[in-house]
Parts: sequence; structure tokens; C-alpha cells
Amino acid sequence: MIIVMATPTIEQIDRVLEKLHQHGLEASSLQSYGKTVITAIGSSQTQDPGFYERMPGVEKVMSIVTPFKLVSREFKQENTVVTAGSAVFGGQSIAVIGGPCAIESYEQLHETAVAIKQAGACMLRGGAYKPRTSPYSFQGLEQEGLNILKAVSKEVGLPVISEVTDPRHVEGMSDVVDMLQIGTRNMQNFALLKEVAKCRKPVLLKRGASSTMEEWLMAAEYIMAGGNENIVLCERGIRTFETYTRNTLDLNAVPMVKHLSHLPIIVDPSHGTGNWRLVNPMSKASLGAGGDGLIIEVHPCPEEAVSDGQQSLTPGNFQQLMTEIQVIAIAMGRNII
Amino acid sequence: MIIVMATPTIEQIDRVLEKLHQHGLEASSLQSYGKTVITAIGSSQTQDPGFYERMPGVEKVMSIVTPFKLVSREFKQENTVVTAGSAVFGGQSIAVIGGPCAIESYEQLHETAVAIKQAGACMLRGGAYKPRTSPYSFQGLEQEGLNILKAVSKEVGLPVISEVTDPRHVEGMSDVVDMLQIGTRNMQNFALLKEVAKCRKPVLLKRGASSTMEEWLMAAEYIMAGGNENIVLCERGIRTFETYTRNTLDLNAVPMVKHLSHLPIIVDPSHGTGNWRLVNPMSKASLGAGGDGLIIEVHPCPEEAVSDGQQSLTPGNFQQLMTEIQVIAIAMGRNII
Amino acid sequence: MIIVMATPTIEQIDRVLEKLHQHGLEASSLQSYGKTVITAIGSSQTQDPGFYERMPGVEKVMSIVTPFKLVSREFKQENTVVTAGSAVFGGQSIAVIGGPCAIESYEQLHETAVAIKQAGACMLRGGAYKPRTSPYSFQGLEQEGLNILKAVSKEVGLPVISEVTDPRHVEGMSDVVDMLQIGTRNMQNFALLKEVAKCRKPVLLKRGASSTMEEWLMAAEYIMAGGNENIVLCERGIRTFETYTRNTLDLNAVPMVKHLSHLPIIVDPSHGTGNWRLVNPMSKASLGAGGDGLIIEVHPCPEEAVSDGQQSLTPGNFQQLMTEIQVIAIAMGRNII
Amino acid sequence: MIIVMATPTIEQIDRVLEKLHQHGLEASSLQSYGKTVITAIGSSQTQDPGFYERMPGVEKVMSIVTPFKLVSREFKQENTVVTAGSAVFGGQSIAVIGGPCAIESYEQLHETAVAIKQAGACMLRGGAYKPRTSPYSFQGLEQEGLNILKAVSKEVGLPVISEVTDPRHVEGMSDVVDMLQIGTRNMQNFALLKEVAKCRKPVLLKRGASSTMEEWLMAAEYIMAGGNENIVLCERGIRTFETYTRNTLDLNAVPMVKHLSHLPIIVDPSHGTGNWRLVNPMSKASLGAGGDGLIIEVHPCPEEAVSDGQQSLTPGNFQQLMTEIQVIAIAMGRNII
Repeated sequence: MIIVMATPTIEQIDRVLEKLHQHGLEASSLQSYGKTVITAIGSSQTQDPGFYERMPGVEKVMSIVTPFKLVSREFKQENTVVTAGSAVFGGQSIAVIGGPCAIESYEQLHETAVAIKQAGACMLRGGAYKPRTSPYSFQGLEQEGLNILKAVSKEVGLPVISEVTDPRHVEGMSDVVDMLQIGTRNMQNFALLKEVAKCRKPVLLKRGASSTMEEWLMAAEYIMAGGNENIVLCERGIRTFETYTRNTLDLNAVPMVKHLSHLPIIVDPSHGTGNWRLVNPMSKASLGAGGDGLIIEVHPCPEEAVSDGQQSLTPGNFQQLMTEIQVIAIAMGRNII
Repeated sequence: MIIVMATPTIEQIDRVLEKLHQHGLEASSLQSYGKTVITAIGSSQTQDPGFYERMPGVEKVMSIVTPFKLVSREFKQENTVVTAGSAVFGGQSIAVIGGPCAIESYEQLHETAVAIKQAGACMLRGGAYKPRTSPYSFQGLEQEGLNILKAVSKEVGLPVISEVTDPRHVEGMSDVVDMLQIGTRNMQNFALLKEVAKCRKPVLLKRGASSTMEEWLMAAEYIMAGGNENIVLCERGIRTFETYTRNTLDLNAVPMVKHLSHLPIIVDPSHGTGNWRLVNPMSKASLGAGGDGLIIEVHPCPEEAVSDGQQSLTPGNFQQLMTEIQVIAIAMGRNII
Repeated sequence: MIIVMATPTIEQIDRVLEKLHQHGLEASSLQSYGKTVITAIGSSQTQDPGFYERMPGVEKVMSIVTPFKLVSREFKQENTVVTAGSAVFGGQSIAVIGGPCAIESYEQLHETAVAIKQAGACMLRGGAYKPRTSPYSFQGLEQEGLNILKAVSKEVGLPVISEVTDPRHVEGMSDVVDMLQIGTRNMQNFALLKEVAKCRKPVLLKRGASSTMEEWLMAAEYIMAGGNENIVLCERGIRTFETYTRNTLDLNAVPMVKHLSHLPIIVDPSHGTGNWRLVNPMSKASLGAGGDGLIIEVHPCPEEAVSDGQQSLTPGNFQQLMTEIQVIAIAMGRNII
Repeated sequence: MIIVMATPTIEQIDRVLEKLHQHGLEASSLQSYGKTVITAIGSSQTQDPGFYERMPGVEKVMSIVTPFKLVSREFKQENTVVTAGSAVFGGQSIAVIGGPCAIESYEQLHETAVAIKQAGACMLRGGAYKPRTSPYSFQGLEQEGLNILKAVSKEVGLPVISEVTDPRHVEGMSDVVDMLQIGTRNMQNFALLKEVAKCRKPVLLKRGASSTMEEWLMAAEYIMAGGNENIVLCERGIRTFETYTRNTLDLNAVPMVKHLSHLPIIVDPSHGTGNWRLVNPMSKASLGAGGDGLIIEVHPCPEEAVSDGQQSLTPGNFQQLMTEIQVIAIAMGRNII
């Protein structure tokens, strides 16, 4: 931690040094040009800039330690590989999850599952509890949706993932799905994160639409500190001023997160663009950036979808995508199926 | 809803018109310069642009209805006044809430409560469950904090507000507080909103740091559609590229929300700026913009605060603020105490 | 400057220290927990973090000096007062500039000028060269517009301001106007800033719609370093994700800039909101925040305006605004006329 | 254009229809649920929403035409190929531009040019006039830099590009360079765009760091409407709330711009990330997204660079990059050299 003081008195400097000492931090100070700069080093848990920012004479306080520990590359050098049912994230293969935004019926989900499995997807997605901006929009089939998901998973032979939105649902959903999804609106729903940490189920942690990479890694830290190490990160687009796309897919996050953390990272180009035409090129871009996988919205009839039809691929589009990204995966030294 | 089609075939136009008809919408179309524009009007519940965006020939779909109903000025013309204990929001008086970010001890809260009551505040705030970015930061005194809050409230004679972060806590907290606070990270925690709607307790709904005004009003719509009409909105700063301030307090939201909705709106300049030096001028600005009140962080010793000390006022700062904004309130045709 | 090194070798530390020494900076280092932190202090001109960021072992480099000098409060403690013709910015009085976005005709400008003068405005604005997003939009009356502006100024007896967009126009426009306006799109047009610095005419420097306060003050620093001290800053809204308003007026900037700099600052609620209904409340908010003045779009018939009609006040609206803000100005210990 | 009126009177509707008629627009109206929706179609030049937004009874006005014409895919279906010296943009080959941010000396530029040519680059970049946030930062070698650029270009046999920042420099620079660069800060410097349009030299138009794709295409429209069709677009990252990267490279823009426009588009991952470690993966991502080329900062000794050293590749890094992206280019059905 660095504490910059502007023309402080000796008493003010002493007070800061004393407080650092109380918190068990080692400190040194340097004075010049009217500024006094205090460098403090020690166990990171005790370093909260907020304790010092309002002390008399202090101009600003800067943290020099990364706030995340367990998820950091420094803590663990080698890449983490997460297994959820038969799906593997972070290994040699690119993992592709496909399926509808919302489960609408057995027929819809079954038809999609068969198609994506044949095209090479390793996991089926389907929402049963849908967080919707409007209380008047379709909120998901809820428990009935989970029943359908369970049945289709068994029949088609694909592991499944579904979004959990309520800490009271974590236990029940864990019996049904192979992987729990934390959606973008719940990335900082700490009550939910703590519950998911306890259940030890593999987790797909989507980035909050307005979250920095640091906040995202801190959310993963919550899960890991709570005892669940099976975390896959998912970049899904951030909120910017641009309006031609629904979100701005931040592919910088892929190599940056890989630099900072040992966790696998996949990309959601469906929400990241909000436009089915961009899903194919941005899937290729995601692999080029070094992503470990993709999660793609697929619907047998997008124009009849009750949610997010404009960003869903048809089974035919998805089959073509899988064929085309196979070549990119190989060029990146990886493979898909 | 407006559907713009680019050089569509007659069959494509017919398909769109037929689908609109199925949804019970009245439609008319106009063609010129290669574009066909279809205007559809009807009950808003059935108008989901997503249904049409992927239909062949469709270029874009635009909504013309405001998605919120019950919270809108069109639904209810006169201003709503919300009462929580002895505090009144949206009336002739400016309501000022004060208190620490986090409850740390009985002494800290009691000292603060006495000071702000004397200065003219109408409600005491204090966090017992704190949503913190880091799992290693202080998470609040939890149930013990609520006990302290209840005791201080009774002793000092001030109604109290505290943040609820978990749907499982709503019932228990409702017995303690006069008003429940939905924090910025939980504005779209729909499981929580639905629970808060059921309990009928007055709610302070903070704007999500990256939420549009529309999403914010839709979150209020969730609560109101669930049966709870006692909602006060709170602007608390949005996330932008600026780094000199912690957030960008969006005071445009005050008159804009008043134009769109009948609900009262207050402002949180402490989080909105993140800098105690700016709290005083931005409080005055908030009243100038037409705000119905303020929520201000006050701590007896900000440099010892375990959370957000850099944005907290001392009791002395707060007393001065109350004196100074009194003049502005009067200039705005209102009053404080 | 702080240089953080992660598990560096002794040679890597030595190379950094040597380079700092070459640049004439005094340095001290502290090691602990695998990190080495080097603090360097010296003349700010030679401190460029870029020189160190790619050196082996360096993790990050943080600047601790404010990059602006002449415009800073540290350089000059007392408030600067800028005089342009009979208008005074930064004194006891609130300065209000009014007028149309674009000069359309002698009649339009004359009618506006008479009305705003009577209402208490101290300066007339009018655009002759208009930066427009589309090449097909009205680009301004150019020289003819300046002739109208000169004539109306003389006849009505109001000093005038107009936007300069091209370094080749600076000299010519300086003969006509009392104050040059640098618009939001040209805040970092350094060729233009340098030309404006040379001419010594008072300058209204609008904040770039996506500029940080630091970049804005650095743009002012360009003008001041070039020899022109007559600078008034103007907050006019920044670009955010919000779509209900054209821009997000960042009133935090008013007290923050006053803390950082000695220059006067006014506010443009017309562009800052893009909505005439919000101009009145946000003008009051601007004064509450401590602003030294306002610049308001006024048009005799906004619905006929060739540019920005939706954010323009009628002369009647403007008269009412001036009456209402007079009370706020007095509550703030200032006055208007 | 769609005009939505809320509970208008018949007179208000008639006034709007009459005004549309005066502007030569064909209109139809539909009424229901208290709203009146007027659809107007006609020549786009006369459709300015601003004319209608302040008319009594009007709630909002939405444009349905794309504001850009000449640069649009509708205007010209086939891809444009731009040739600048021996470099070709938008053809079968991926075009890679390399070189230093700023020209520092003959030796520095010559060494870089030899290295990048050997690695397969098709053009040399080098800044002579540098737009810098601080007036105290190195502003470029100016004319001397151009002389060096000319000499190196001739000697090494590579076409060259340099940034133009002042309309008065356009003519002179056109004699030296094969392509003019409009930098991010000048994307809406319309005086400069108009001058560049007149000179007919190929132009690399960088996206403004806070510009929407629509504004960017409108800037290209300025150049094209002025008579210069040789435009290459360059995505270089946008400003967001994220701080781990200098900018957020918006690769969504690549397929979206290709959908909207016939112009070639390349990517600048150096500025787009601000971090040399991310340049390699984001270059691959750019090709995956369908980009037509790259512009990469290369410096013989990045840690000695006077500008942007932290995002520059060494000649060795660049050689490796060229080798690795060759495989991706082939996977995308293209090639580099």
C-alpha cells in the first residue's frame, strides 16, 4: 500500500506510521517536493486503503497487492481443469455448450439437445428460472423446466447446466444439473455465491455486465474461499455506450484473465453481441484470443423463442459454426471433438 | 411497436402481419424507398420485440410503449408520499437519512444517532449485512448488528433503515427496521425484489451502478406488481470512465424520474461521489435538482470506520451540512425540519 | 512515481534504480512478501511511467504527481476571475450565457439577444461553424453568421461567444467575438488549443464528452502553457450507457474541479441533458454544486430550430429560469444581476 | 421516421402532418391506447428528428433510416479494396502495418523497418506529429520526422503511413506518405476530415475512443462525400469502466462494420489493449473476427521508447507474431505473405 501525503506535518506522518504499525505493516517513507510517500508492506488481509484515506494530511492511498489470492496465477501456476459430468473445461479440447435461453417444452429442448450433441457440443444449457428485466416477461418454467432438463439430459446423454438465481434453490438444483450457472446480474449476489461455494458443484461464473475483471475474480474468490474450486469463468459482454450491439464482448478479458488467474475461461458470444449474425465470427475470435470454450444459444425455431430469439442460432447455423471453428481450434493447437 | 423491413418480399410482410394478428395487435404498413414500416398497437403485455427480430426481412424492431406501468406518471398523476415510522418521503419536507455505512458497535451507532437526530435527520441508517467486493473484508455484524440497531432506534427515538441482501432475511429484518434498503448490487436480484414486495415494508430502492433509469423503474415495477407500493427511489451514482470520483452521481435522474414516475426520489451523495469533500456541494445540487431527500454517511470517527471512511462525514460536518441545505430547501419552496 | 516489481532479481532492481538515477530521480526501495516497491521522487517533467513499464521484473508503475501544473490549485491558491467584454466569470455574480445553438438569421439572433439581455444574461452565444455528426446536416452560416453575430452584439450591447473549430479561423474569429468556445469534440484538438493559446482571447473550454477531469485540466494546461490564462471550464455532460438523456451531466465535476484548480467553471445543462424539460432543474442543481455560471440554449421558436431544438428554451422559459435561479444564487451567497 | 404522440389533440396531429408534408415526406398515422403513431417516409436528407421533437403533443421521434449512405453496404454491395503504394487492404491477403508509435531517430526507424519488412509487414508506421495528453510530453520530431520517414521508406522499400493532426499539414504530408492516418482524437475533427477528403490520399480512419460505430461511419461518410473513396477503418479500442486494460478492444465492430459497410477494416491491438502481452492473442482474435489487417507497434527497444513502450513489441516478438497469425489467416481462408 502506498500512502501519498501532501505537505504533511510531522505529527500527521507519525500518526499514519503508528497506525500502520498497529496493523502489523512494515513501512518506509520518503520526502521530496512537498510530498511524503509512505510505502507499507505486510499481510494483505490487513491492508484496507479506507483506513487511511481520511487521515489528516493524506492525499491518496493506492493498493499494490492484487486483492484476489486463491484464484490468482501467483497462488497456483498451472491451469485448472474443471470437469462437469463428461464435459471438461480448460483442457486440450475446446468445450462448447449449446441450448436455448429458456426451456419452453420437452420437445423444444429434446430437439435442440439431439442437434447440438450431433454437432459436437459437450453440454446442454437451458434456463428454468429466468431473471427478466420486466415482471411481465416470461419468468421460466421453474421446477417443471428442471424436470424437463433432467429427462432430456438422461435421454440424450449430455451433461446439463442451468442458472441459479436464489440461494434457496441451490440445493435442489444441484441434484438436477452437472454445473450451476451464476448469471451476469448475480455475479455480486454474495448470499448466492456463498451458498454455491458450500455445495461444491462445478460453477460457471459469468462476468457482471458492468464488472471489472478485478471484481469478477473477487467473486470467484468468494466461491473458492468458501470451499468450491470448480469454477469456470465466462466473458459475456460488458455495458458500454455502443448501441449497435447489445453488449460489447470484451475479448481482452480472455488473455488478461489467463495472465492473472489459473481458472479456465469461456466466452458467450450470443449475449456478448445480442445478434445471431455476429455469433459465428465472434466465436472464432474467442478461440483466437485463447478462450477454452463457448456457450451458444441454439433454438429450433428462433423466431418463436420466448426469450432472446434474435441472438439464437438455428441447429443448422450451429452445425456450420462447429465445422468452421474446428479449423480455428486446430490452428490454435487445440481441438473440439 | 414499429417493425422496419428492408426490401421485403410480400410473403415476408404477410408473415409478420399474420403474427401480429395472432398476438392480437392492430397493424398498418407503409412502403417507400425500399423500406416497409409496420406500426403495431395493442395491449403492451403481448408486445415483445424479440418475437419479430429474427423473422425474414425484418431489419429492426422498436418499442414505442414504456415498459413500466404501475410506477409510471401516466398510471398515477399525483406524487406518491411514502411514510416509514415518523419519516415522510415525497412530502413538503426534505427527508434526510444519516448514519454509518456499517454498524460497528453500540457506542458508535448511539453516538451517531444522537448527533444526527439533533441536527435534524429523520431516519438512522446502519448496515448489518454488508455486500463487500472481497470475501476478506468485514461482512457486517449481522444479527448482532440488527440488535444494536433496534436498541438504538428505541432509545434515541429515530426510525431505522438497513440493507437486506438475502431473500431469507426479509421477514426477520422487517421486524426490526422501519424501511428495507435494496442496495445497488441487488437492484436486479429478482428473488429478493419479489420477497420484499410480499412483506409490504417501505423500501428504499437504490439504482444499480450500471442500470439505466428504465431498468431501475422496472425493478420498482417488480415490487409494485408484487403488492408493495411503499417505494422510495435513490440515485447513488453510476459507473463511468471517470476515476477522480468513485461513481458519477447522475442528478439528471432526479427530474427525469420525477417526469416518468410518481414515486419519491432521494440522493446518496456519499456513494455517488466517494469523497467526503464533495458530499456538501452535491447535497445542495441534489436539492436544486428537485430531490425529495438525502441519505448521508456519518461516522463519529471516519478514519476509524471499517468501511467507506473516506466518504463519511463527521457529526460536525453533518451538522454544518444540515444548516446549509436548510437555506437551499427554502429557496426550493420546501423545508427540512 | 511508484514502481512495483514482482519477485525481481537483484540485477533487475539495479537496472531500474540506475535508470531512475539517470533521469535525476531520487529513489528508495522496500522489499517484502516477494514484492519490491520503489518510490521515486523528483521533478515531474522527467517522470514518465512508460519508461519503466516494460523493464524486466516490473509489474506496474503508478504516478503520484498530478500532471497539471499551471491550472492547479497548488500552483495558484486564489480563484481566477476571467473577464470577457462586460461578462465576468468566477466572481461574486453567476454568469449566464444564452442564445441559439446555430445562428440562422439576423432576425432570429436579434430577437433572442434582446430577450436574454432583458432576462439578465451577460453574454450571447451563437454558432457560425457547427461541428455536425453528419456531412448532410446544416454546417452553420460560417462567415455570414459571424457578421450577424457582430452586428447583433453591437446593436443589443452584449458580449458574444462562438465556437472555433479550425486553427485557421482563430485569428479571424478573435476580431469578432469576446470569447472563443472550444467545443466538446475539439477538447483534445491540440493544433487548435495551441492556436487559441497564442491569441490570448478568453476561452470557454468545454469538457470532452468522454474525457476524464484530468484530461480536461490537461487541455487547459495546453492553453495556459501556451500563454493564455483566460480560461473558463464548462461541464456539458459525459457519455454513459444511459439513453433517456442525451448525456449524463457530471455535476461532481464542479466541486472536484474547484478543489483541483483555480479556474472558474460553468455548466451547460442544455447539452448535458438534451431535454429542455430538464434544463431548469439542472440549472438549479448546477448552482447548488457551486458552479460559477450557466450556458443555456435559447431559441425564439425551438421547434423551427435547425439544430438541437429539443433542448432549447423559449425566451419565456428562459425568463422564468432566470427568475427562479436568482433565489438559488442568493441562497448560495451569490447573485445574478 | 416514426413520431409517437401521447394523447395529442387533433390540431397537434395536424400540425405535425402538415410539417412533414412541407418537408416532402409521405406520412400515415395510427391511433390506439391513447397513442398516435405517425410513420413518415421520404428522402433521408430532409428527415431531421430535431424538427419534430419539441412540437406540442410529441413524445418521441425515432429515425428508421441509416444516416450513412456512400459508405453503406446498401449503396455498394461488393467489398472495397484500398491500395496504398504496394499495400493492399481488403483483398485476399491480411495487411499488417508495423512500426514505432513515434519516430525518434533515423537509426530507430531504419532498424524497425528492416525487421518488420523481413517479418512480412506491408507498410511502415511512424508518428511525426504526436497528439499527447500533456503539453510537457514529447510532441514528435515534426518535419524532421517526416524527412526520416521518407528516407527510410525509400531505402527499405516499404510504403509508409503517418498521423495528420492539423488541416494545414495535409498537403505537405501527402507528398511524403502513402497513407494518412486520422487518429482517435481527431475522428470528429471535421475541418481535418474535409481537408483529407480533398487530397484523395488513402486514409486510415481510426475509431474515436468513445465513438459509436454509427458516428465512425459518419466520419467516413464525410471523407467519402468530399470525394475520397480510399478509406480503411481501424478499430483501436473504446473507453469503458475497465482499468486492467488501457482500452477495451471492441472486436464486435469488425463483423458489424462489415455487415453495414463495404469498407475494409483493420485492428490496432497495441492501443486496443495497451499491454504488449495481449497484442499476440488479440491479433489472432482480430483475424478470427474477420479483420482485414493489423497495425502493430514495434520498437527496437521498447523500454527506451519515448511513447507507448509498454504496448510495443520487439522485432523478435513481431517476427513470432507474424509466424503465428499466418496459421490463423490460412484457417480463415486468407493469407499474409
